[in-house]
Amino acid sequence: MLIVQKFGGTSVGDLQRIQNVANRVSKTRKEGHDVVVVVSAMSGETNKLVAYAEHFSKNPSRAEMDMLLSSGERVTASLLAIALQEMGHDAVAMTGRKAGIVTDDSHTKARIEDINPATMLESIEAGKIIVVAGFQGVNIAGDVTTLGRGGSDLSAVAIAGAIKADLCEIYTDVSGIFTTDPRIEPKAKKLEKISYDEMLELASMGAKVLQNRSVEMAKKLNVNLVTRTSFSDEEGTLITKEENIMEAPLVSGIALDRNQARISLMGVKDRPGIASEIFNKLADAEVNVDMIIQNKAHDGTTNIDFTVATGDLFDAKAVVDTFVDEGEIKADSYNEDICKVSVVGVGMKSHTGVAAKAFTTMAENNININMISTSEIKISMVINEKYAELAVRGLHDAYELDK
Amino acid sequence: MLIVQKFGGTSVGDLQRIQNVANRVSKTRKEGHDVVVVVSAMSGETNKLVAYAEHFSKNPSRAEMDMLLSSGERVTASLLAIALQEMGHDAVAMTGRKAGIVTDDSHTKARIEDINPATMLESIEAGKIIVVAGFQGVNIAGDVTTLGRGGSDLSAVAIAGAIKADLCEIYTDVSGIFTTDPRIEPKAKKLEKISYDEMLELASMGAKVLQNRSVEMAKKLNVNLVTRTSFSDEEGTLITKEENIMEAPLVSGIALDRNQARISLMGVKDRPGIASEIFNKLADAEVNVDMIIQNKAHDGTTNIDFTVATGDLFDAKAVVDTFVDEGEIKADSYNEDICKVSVVGVGMKSHTGVAAKAFTTMAENNININMISTSEIKISMVINEKYAELAVRGLHDAYELDK
Repeated sequence: MLIVQKFGGTSVGDLQRIQNVANRVSKTRKEGHDVVVVVSAMSGETNKLVAYAEHFSKNPSRAEMDMLLSSGERVTASLLAIALQEMGHDAVAMTGRKAGIVTDDSHTKARIEDINPATMLESIEAGKIIVVAGFQGVNIAGDVTTLGRGGSDLSAVAIAGAIKADLCEIYTDVSGIFTTDPRIEPKAKKLEKISYDEMLELASMGAKVLQNRSVEMAKKLNVNLVTRTSFSDEEGTLITKEENIMEAPLVSGIALDRNQARISLMGVKDRPGIASEIFNKLADAEVNVDMIIQNKAHDGTTNIDFTVATGDLFDAKAVVDTFVDEGEIKADSYNEDICKVSVVGVGMKSHTGVAAKAFTTMAENNININMISTSEIKISMVINEKYAELAVRGLHDAYELDK
Repeated sequence: MLIVQKFGGTSVGDLQRIQNVANRVSKTRKEGHDVVVVVSAMSGETNKLVAYAEHFSKNPSRAEMDMLLSSGERVTASLLAIALQEMGHDAVAMTGRKAGIVTDDSHTKARIEDINPATMLESIEAGKIIVVAGFQGVNIAGDVTTLGRGGSDLSAVAIAGAIKADLCEIYTDVSGIFTTDPRIEPKAKKLEKISYDEMLELASMGAKVLQNRSVEMAKKLNVNLVTRTSFSDEEGTLITKEENIMEAPLVSGIALDRNQARISLMGVKDRPGIASEIFNKLADAEVNVDMIIQNKAHDGTTNIDFTVATGDLFDAKAVVDTFVDEGEIKADSYNEDICKVSVVGVGMKSHTGVAAKAFTTMAENNININMISTSEIKISMVINEKYAELAVRGLHDAYELDK
């Protein structure tokens, strides 16, 4: 098999851990596989460099930040290649440039536009282990760019797609994707397989494991993604296309997102286009609106409730206030003491009663549901944050996810 | 003027010092000059990376070492550019690649083959301050290479030559070139100007200030080189072509090289080609032979004495021993307790009596001269190491270098 293995900052956090990574790569190689390794900077290194830059400027220029930050991954890649060579392997370190990763011009948050895998394929053909510095590429002008948060994962997935790897393994300090957060429900089980779409819906739970950007790219490029831990030989979770999962369970997991705030607009003037105006202004302010409920009040005006990420609340308030000032909205209120609990599963596409069971479970636990939104593979409920754990455990139990 | 300013590791050793460098560059810019800055890695950084690599391998591969080591200069260049931008300057950081530095394939000790200054000239034209990561370039395959010891000085000189800079200032922790080592002779004076050739001869004294590689390149490219300190505004020493020095002094300085060993070959068989054989074998073993004395013994055999750098003594012994084993040489002996004192000055080309004064000085101080070698601008004498300081002070005095 041709396998891409990506190791994050914690996995290469010190010299001993880099040696451990070399041992793992070596083992994979000796099992007869071709291996391309993608590495992050040693943990703490990127933060140190950011702090250096911020010593000089609160708003350092992005092109220079990219030249600065891309150095961390180069160090890890070189060291790992040296370690592998010392173990007798023919290994070669590559920068993002050498690996053929071409991005757009958005320094510090560039998007991969193209990968020219010729150099990598040549080295694989020659029997070499390739160690690529993750998180980086070059724009068409030839300047170094970085891919932003989770960038090394993205490098790995994009490379796996470009070289048509059989597997892309993402090694972290977490052993895989669980039916829910084990810190909330100790009975949570690790999933063997999960579909891209389910993974995307579970993202709020799995955010620390995989970012949506990487999962979306894996889905687009049809890359079989595995998340597993670098600290043991434990099997991880395979994220793949739905067709590869033979017997999809009704429900795969319960996700919890505490990072939610609710905005209530009372007495919105009843004129055509007012809702569209409000939400367009919010979009202009780069506020990401999640759930929306609208209903008529007795006096002919409308009440609109919607949720945003807590971090967007300040910007959202500013937009809403302008409408209040202009008398278009009578009053507004905000609530940060909410959370969103989601039931995720591709199986619910073809089964009925999944939503009903969720609502019943909430009722049995005396939890009031504020808002509901559903998709083909997900039911999300906004509830008071104090019931978060109770709801997660109740749903985990109701769908028998510990079985 | 168009000025290249190069700052070594000590000058950019921490964030405060990088800010000091930014202040100096800013000042130069505000005086109306165009500035290209070349920086080394923060002091200690390169050693740290070397130690990391040696943790994994006693003999790490050179290509990977280059990818590893080149990261340090990138960090400094980015940070300095950010600091300059924060001060309101239009500054841009460039890697060796971006600056157009093309080298040969000799990883970790590459030679600069060509500089394509187009990108730099464009940025200068646009009024930008350029900050180049020193010590690095790319080979024709596009892989990062590093230039070996003193590589950042070399980057600076080569860039100054390529963009036809008026001046190339090398900032170190030493304030310039002195008539001799001030730790030996406190009356030593800083030279205002010195010719390339004198600087090359004084190298053993000035090794810590400037490497011969850089001086040779400055001479070849006709670059006006200034060495000065980054820790004060004190003027430095200009190293330039002889024609630019109007009234060359008879003697510019006294150099001392303690790093010398003497090898004596007794009873070398008197057959044609034997000396050539010995010195060719030494050259094959990469032993750099400095001075050679040959004289006939009474028995028809020959005695040959020569000096090498102490570090080459081990390799030289190995070569010589093969000739002893084969009976071509009767006996050999070694002496590390020697040093080389040199009187350097372009003025001696057109003046007589300079050598005589040196020999007289030694005689007056009861110092026995073991070996002598002279060039147009230099008289070197090998003496017992215990007289080193006495000889340096005596000569400094004799040529009135404190005046």
